[in-house]
Amino acid sequence: MAETWFIVPADKHDSLVERVYRARGYNEDEARAGARFCHSAARHGVRTHNALKALHLDDLFGSKVGRWTPGARIERLPSRFAASESWDGHHKLGQAVAYEAMDRCMQLADRYGVGMVSVDNATHYLWGGGYVIDAALKGYIAYTNCTSATSEVVPFGGRTPTMGTNPHSWGFPTQDAVGFPIVIDWATSTVAMGRVQQFAREGRSLAAGWAVDVDGQPTTDPNRAVALLPFGAHKGYGLGLVDELYAAFIGGGLPSIRGTAKGDAREKRGTTFHFQCIHPEALQGHDYARGRTQQENVKACLEDILGPGNERCLLPGEPEARAAELSDAHGGLLFSKAEVEGFAHLADELGEPAWKPEDFKAITASPEQR
Amino acid sequence: MAETWFIVPADKHDSLVERVYRARGYNEDEARAGARFCHSAARHGVRTHNALKALHLDDLFGSKVGRWTPGARIERLPSRFAASESWDGHHKLGQAVAYEAMDRCMQLADRYGVGMVSVDNATHYLWGGGYVIDAALKGYIAYTNCTSATSEVVPFGGRTPTMGTNPHSWGFPTQDAVGFPIVIDWATSTVAMGRVQQFAREGRSLAAGWAVDVDGQPTTDPNRAVALLPFGAHKGYGLGLVDELYAAFIGGGLPSIRGTAKGDAREKRGTTFHFQCIHPEALQGHDYARGRTQQENVKACLEDILGPGNERCLLPGEPEARAAELSDAHGGLLFSKAEVEGFAHLADELGEPAWKPEDFKAITASPEQR
Repeated sequence: MAETWFIVPADKHDSLVERVYRARGYNEDEARAGARFCHSAARHGVRTHNALKALHLDDLFGSKVGRWTPGARIERLPSRFAASESWDGHHKLGQAVAYEAMDRCMQLADRYGVGMVSVDNATHYLWGGGYVIDAALKGYIAYTNCTSATSEVVPFGGRTPTMGTNPHSWGFPTQDAVGFPIVIDWATSTVAMGRVQQFAREGRSLAAGWAVDVDGQPTTDPNRAVALLPFGAHKGYGLGLVDELYAAFIGGGLPSIRGTAKGDAREKRGTTFHFQCIHPEALQGHDYARGRTQQENVKACLEDILGPGNERCLLPGEPEARAAELSDAHGGLLFSKAEVEGFAHLADELGEPAWKPEDFKAITASPEQR
Repeated sequence: MAETWFIVPADKHDSLVERVYRARGYNEDEARAGARFCHSAARHGVRTHNALKALHLDDLFGSKVGRWTPGARIERLPSRFAASESWDGHHKLGQAVAYEAMDRCMQLADRYGVGMVSVDNATHYLWGGGYVIDAALKGYIAYTNCTSATSEVVPFGGRTPTMGTNPHSWGFPTQDAVGFPIVIDWATSTVAMGRVQQFAREGRSLAAGWAVDVDGQPTTDPNRAVALLPFGAHKGYGLGLVDELYAAFIGGGLPSIRGTAKGDAREKRGTTFHFQCIHPEALQGHDYARGRTQQENVKACLEDILGPGNERCLLPGEPEARAAELSDAHGGLLFSKAEVEGFAHLADELGEPAWKPEDFKAITASPEQR
């Protein structure tokens, strides 16, 4: 459905976001990484993780409540393993840590074929897809998982939410094959709690398998839903556990009290991140059919998958790529009226006049949004 | 439900399987790997991938039809990447290649923290869980994916099966924490085609979301089902694509003609494998809560996940571990009556008398089976 979008010049957006981070005590590099991330989310149509969300999370969990530490320095732990690093993030801004970790994975992959960085005492990196898209566009196969800020998901067969929505993100450098990087990126709950809240506001029933009530019983009433279910039953539960296990090996604390003040004061409540890059040449065989190059083979296989009968299938990452094209075509970042108005409190934080929709050029479009 | 199981001494089982592989032309090492794998599957209660299935696959796709090459030598391609290897499997028996590849990943992980082996011109390795359990028991975090022998899965939003059931398998060395390695291991279709066929035999309707008919329309009639759907809609589709993308980068052929004689003669029809091991110390932080060791932290986090309200949740890998305990307690491999009788054609292939259920000690039990 076509909607009205307001085109905010990227400079104006990035400058505001950067200055808000600076005003909250983050240093220049952190503020720049924070703005870079919000720009990327908005440009790719990822409205759930744009600047409004990023800075709201900083209100809820971050500098406003003293849990994230502006200006913190990443501590690189000594390691006897050449292709792998462990970092203590010391609660530095997640976006800054994530970009730096993925950059380091690429350097390691250049040398070892595969490179890996794990981060303890992490915060929130918002949208894993952003980091793997970035690495894929630079030519790498990238992967990241993390634990969520809080635990909202009930293990398969249980009643109590003791796991995060724990996302996984994979990116593949398929831009030469299909025009954009394939990005597989989602939480391991069926839906996000934000979707449940949206349904409550709109008076709609939840689908079966989304949520449970306070007794751990499945419910389709959004007003009774207090916790989420994993997608795909035991399969999504297993995928959510993968993140919890990485976290437990890295140094994460008890999942059920993550992001809370509950439990023993000696327990940790933070998240962990894990990043990996593979250099595509490290996977390369010597026997592509019909003498194809690696990229030609990737292109042929993807065309085959989307062959007769499957013309209407999307490749994951395509909606994000289309949104980015639309942004680029209009020379700015696209926001809805409510979103433009949502920036008012950020401008206010800086003592500046609020953005008004009429200040921006408006278009009507149906961008592929998430 | 309690059933009758016949306890086949492991030596008797392994010897039969090994001699059948030898009679089919496989060399000693291959036959030993083949028997080792079948033993592991039977011991862990993985009835879908025991010796009967392994040798039936060799009938359908393997040495009997000239597609798998007994005695083939693995070719290790030159690589400039220290932690990563690419192999040409030359259609050597999948189980032999998989054990060797995972062993190599462990060696690489010892040195680099992470190690990776990709295999082109692969065959079928049956049950990825077997390899990751093995690596996890040796102390590594292990992962493998592969492309299936044929393409039975319709991409999300499509009508034509152009993807494999493409499994993923993760194993974690959690035996010190919970008594067994956690193993997350499943196909990216909702169910296997074997399950659809079983429902057809039993006159039962399929669940919604399992399969489509010849026109690509969802069906619950097992007799009309010709292709499978990914689990979890676009999420399972994405996970299946991950395997297809690894395959395409490694050197796999067009997915839709895999395992068939269709299409251009110059196209490839084989599968690929990908393996990875991580040394857990490569993930290790320096800040476990309350001074816990890494393994103590893993144990505390898993206990937390299975805390109040979640006592009845299983950890993935637990059913396999319980089945192995039962096998070990009875000093042999457990098979049903039909399975014992199913070995008759293998004995016959060797000119030996068939096994009879009454030759073996019988027990009544309800092992955790898949």
